[in-house]
Amino acid sequence: MPTLSMYEASIPTFIHTLTSLKAILQKGIASAEARKFDPNVLAASRLYPDMLPLTRQVLIASDAAKGAAARLAGIEPPKIEDTETTLAELVTRVEKTLDFIKSVKREQLDGSEEREIVLKTPRGDLKFTGLLFLRHWALPNFFFHVTTTYNLLRHAGVDIGKLDYLGGTLQG
Amino acid sequence: MPTLSMYEASIPTFIHTLTSLKAILQKGIASAEARKFDPNVLAASRLYPDMLPLTRQVLIASDAAKGAAARLAGIEPPKIEDTETTLAELVTRVEKTLDFIKSVKREQLDGSEEREIVLKTPRGDLKFTGLLFLRHWALPNFFFHVTTTYNLLRHAGVDIGKLDYLGGTLQG
Repeated sequence: MPTLSMYEASIPTFIHTLTSLKAILQKGIASAEARKFDPNVLAASRLYPDMLPLTRQVLIASDAAKGAAARLAGIEPPKIEDTETTLAELVTRVEKTLDFIKSVKREQLDGSEEREIVLKTPRGDLKFTGLLFLRHWALPNFFFHVTTTYNLLRHAGVDIGKLDYLGGTLQG
Repeated sequence: MPTLSMYEASIPTFIHTLTSLKAILQKGIASAEARKFDPNVLAASRLYPDMLPLTRQVLIASDAAKGAAARLAGIEPPKIEDTETTLAELVTRVEKTLDFIKSVKREQLDGSEEREIVLKTPRGDLKFTGLLFLRHWALPNFFFHVTTTYNLLRHAGVDIGKLDYLGGTLQG
């Protein structure tokens, strides 16, 4: 029975929801094929002209997850070139992200609630403890971009529902 | 310096993001007024005909937060009738939710990672430990409905950005 730790509060969440994200993207591909249009129309779709397209939503969700796992573990996140333009490539990107996150060890995150995390932004450095970074940056950001990907596909008529987002194995 | 606990992994997240949700809804009201249309057009808006309207997105976000806080604390969540139909009423709903969540004490959540949580659903009971409930149900559900509210307003041209969602006081 797992008890609370920085590992338990972060890594399984990313694994669980990235697995849902992969399944949701695959349903997008299947839906486009069934309705006989190019699935990459979905990849370029936006909810508003100056919002980021679906492609970027997935890349940012991936970066939020691997960046958080790496920062909390005190290691460098793997560099993945942002070259994905198709839904199929985005599925592979999510798989690569999952591979990295699954490689992070429980003990690498021990004590990370108090580790200093510095985010470089165009508006200057943001400094957090690991706990505040996870709670107010990494998790909200990650869920935001996964949900927006879901909303883009749902808005385009892809037959997905809340359980696709929450994940089939709710207990796990 | 707070360290990780079930309280720290849940209550401040709900307070932080409900505060953002309130501000986002208020920007929706201001935007409708500036553009001279009834803000309640936004309250009834949907991203797809069979998706829930904005009103329900906010009510579910409220229920997810107060239900999680109450269940983890082992107390009954306050009953709030779901009668809200206007954006202004939704702002009040979020305020009431915040009042309850702020009333939950740190010690009420002690040990809740192993508390059994039973959710009654139309498809049968779902049983979780407190940790799995928070991680795989309460937080993803909560962020989903706040983000969808954001996306509905953004899709309608309300001038909000990611920092409105992440919250102005990122460090806190």
